[in-house]
Amino acid sequence: MDIPKIDLPRIVVIGCGFAGLNFCKKINSQQYQVVLLDKNNYHTFQPLMYQVASSGLEADSIVYPIRKVFTGKKHFHFRMTEVQYIDPSIKTVHTSIGDLPYDYLVMATGAANNFFGMDNMEKHAFPMKSLVEALDLRSIILQNFEQALNTESVKERESLMNFVIVGAGATGVELAGALAELKKYILPKDYPDLDIRKMQIHVIEATDKVLGNMSENAAQKSEKFLKKMGVNVWLNTRVADYDGEIVTTDKENLHTRTLIWTAGVKGNVVNGLDASAVQRNRVEVNEQYEVKGHQAIFALGDVARMRLENYPEGHPMLASVAGQQGTHLAKNLNRLAKGQNMLPFKYKDKGTMATIGRNLAVVDMGKIKFAGLFAWFAWMFVHLMLLVDFRSRLVVFVNWAWSYLRYDKGTRLIVRRVERKKPAKKKVLQVAALEEE
Amino acid sequence: MDIPKIDLPRIVVIGCGFAGLNFCKKINSQQYQVVLLDKNNYHTFQPLMYQVASSGLEADSIVYPIRKVFTGKKHFHFRMTEVQYIDPSIKTVHTSIGDLPYDYLVMATGAANNFFGMDNMEKHAFPMKSLVEALDLRSIILQNFEQALNTESVKERESLMNFVIVGAGATGVELAGALAELKKYILPKDYPDLDIRKMQIHVIEATDKVLGNMSENAAQKSEKFLKKMGVNVWLNTRVADYDGEIVTTDKENLHTRTLIWTAGVKGNVVNGLDASAVQRNRVEVNEQYEVKGHQAIFALGDVARMRLENYPEGHPMLASVAGQQGTHLAKNLNRLAKGQNMLPFKYKDKGTMATIGRNLAVVDMGKIKFAGLFAWFAWMFVHLMLLVDFRSRLVVFVNWAWSYLRYDKGTRLIVRRVERKKPAKKKVLQVAALEEE
Repeated sequence: MDIPKIDLPRIVVIGCGFAGLNFCKKINSQQYQVVLLDKNNYHTFQPLMYQVASSGLEADSIVYPIRKVFTGKKHFHFRMTEVQYIDPSIKTVHTSIGDLPYDYLVMATGAANNFFGMDNMEKHAFPMKSLVEALDLRSIILQNFEQALNTESVKERESLMNFVIVGAGATGVELAGALAELKKYILPKDYPDLDIRKMQIHVIEATDKVLGNMSENAAQKSEKFLKKMGVNVWLNTRVADYDGEIVTTDKENLHTRTLIWTAGVKGNVVNGLDASAVQRNRVEVNEQYEVKGHQAIFALGDVARMRLENYPEGHPMLASVAGQQGTHLAKNLNRLAKGQNMLPFKYKDKGTMATIGRNLAVVDMGKIKFAGLFAWFAWMFVHLMLLVDFRSRLVVFVNWAWSYLRYDKGTRLIVRRVERKKPAKKKVLQVAALEEE
Repeated sequence: MDIPKIDLPRIVVIGCGFAGLNFCKKINSQQYQVVLLDKNNYHTFQPLMYQVASSGLEADSIVYPIRKVFTGKKHFHFRMTEVQYIDPSIKTVHTSIGDLPYDYLVMATGAANNFFGMDNMEKHAFPMKSLVEALDLRSIILQNFEQALNTESVKERESLMNFVIVGAGATGVELAGALAELKKYILPKDYPDLDIRKMQIHVIEATDKVLGNMSENAAQKSEKFLKKMGVNVWLNTRVADYDGEIVTTDKENLHTRTLIWTAGVKGNVVNGLDASAVQRNRVEVNEQYEVKGHQAIFALGDVARMRLENYPEGHPMLASVAGQQGTHLAKNLNRLAKGQNMLPFKYKDKGTMATIGRNLAVVDMGKIKFAGLFAWFAWMFVHLMLLVDFRSRLVVFVNWAWSYLRYDKGTRLIVRRVERKKPAKKKVLQVAALEEE
């Protein structure tokens, strides 16, 4: 890879989520050369992704061009590429566009979907961890209703209008609420030829409450909100299989053409680390973010597990943890360059919030817990302020205000048709003469 | 297709461009049942498509969900489907989701790219007639620069940074201007590792002027504006071939990985019409829009050619013509239902305008012709007002104001990687054992 060699130590950062973004913003580029690698040319504001999937916001409102963030930053280089593996013995990252030596490596690769070995699930479920997945989900939801108009089978029509969300964390709950709003305000107007009352929204959760990482108050309130909006909440229910048509659980089986998977993530661990460094799909790091058994390799955010006394299983996989860690490691390396010692990380929990629907949200801020209209406004305000620039804020504000006042959504567009995976087939031997292209 | 049969004559409308949209808005649905068919679930505001391609606007600003436009309209049905052919002998439309009988058929199918039989061109050029093509073009432009960073060949790098636009109509000229603005204001900041001065923008035009359908004044001014912005304008130049790397013309040959085709369109004629009705890729219609040799079939907009004394070759293929024809035919059919006679169509030319860049546009309004800053504001105001709803107007206004004040663009995102077509291959015989999926 054609990066100039200069007289500063080179830090290679893999991934531009919240950890990588904040790290690159705060690292002193008078002291280090920084090379940021990401497979996309944009940073994704994941907390609002469910609004892209449910026709509330367009992609450009929640993703942000990486090159724009770092305009004018000295000794900074961005390359759009996929990392294949790293070789710590020669301190080199191998990528799809060539090799890149590093002095320090920062692994901020985030998390990927975890289907816990259920191959069928992986094949047929719709996940929502990336922007493209969110856009595909939006298309498939709308395609379902277009298709429901054209089927004469009642069973098929209901299966198309049934939505099963597995996982009642923030993503699952927020998406279920957004679908319930589509059902209530938008779809009956859009599809007068369909009986939208037949549309069903299910949320399946293996534990005994929704929003498991929030307070008991938030869990109860949000479950109440969901039920009020007509969402079927299945607690203590385990999903066993999904063949594209039937969800098998340890309770009832559900018919649906659309299962949305929000039930599991795993650290996106880069190949090439020592086996002992990786446990249960995350990378073990010490209080300085140093990867176990390696030197000059750091890991941050979702991919890293820093076991502390008050976080024996590591920090929760949250944007706020990742962001704070990115900032903190950058400051530590800036200190290191000046010969100062590195400081241990201490997570500041500024609170957690989730929105379920119009005027319905839950907020935990330390001992202060509230829910309802005021929580909803707080949620909107905080998320608007967290967006990267003024333009996005204004565009999102216009869209939200429009939706609120007009009971409408702006972007229910099927931009690219999504094809469902085909049912299992027998092996065939095919002899094909490929045409001259 | 499952459309209720009621006691009103059924009009089937194919296509929801400006003609189909206006027709469906104005047709009296107390007098007719209307079934609108389109392969997308949105209407596209084509005049601003070049801004999607050049990272100025996001898709949702210029496309509009069809179902939303017709919320609450009686006896109106929309189906997202592709029309395969029509059978006038049994008054039936055959589509990918079944057959549909009609009493009246309105063909508002618009225009498609015309490569004039140049197969190589069709294979390697990037057209810009649909939203997906515009989004692909945006991706490929940005991918080029990412790729230019990773090549050591100077020739390859320059080829990636060369953009050749064929056709100097409004689309070609506006896109060339937008690329010149990217070159001037955005790309040097985004790609400090590249020498953006090497980027070249060429516009190739077979006739002796740009904006051939506008006044001599507009043609001269816009050519001057383009040159001022560093665009290479090639007049009286014919393109012969393009193999994905070299554009062959009757003057010089140009190296480019990106040829954008805006030089030709043809009517999107539906299969099944009498051969005599189709001439030079458009459908011949009389002053009542009736297709030659057919009964109860009308054609509107780009696909139709209505030869009148002052338009011996038919009207120009413009959004304003299509829109006026849609409105007018609807009014005529409303009159017919009341037993009144149909009135002939008369095109009201309200003027033509094109924007080349910041503060640079040209406007023709009858005898009034002007150019420059005031024309640019007029262009912006008119296009804002033409957008379908207040939300789109506000979002577009925010984006334009931001771009203007900050010399910036919002949406330079590579959302889906676009693969270039591969070079020609020899025939191969392949024996493949397909895995059990």
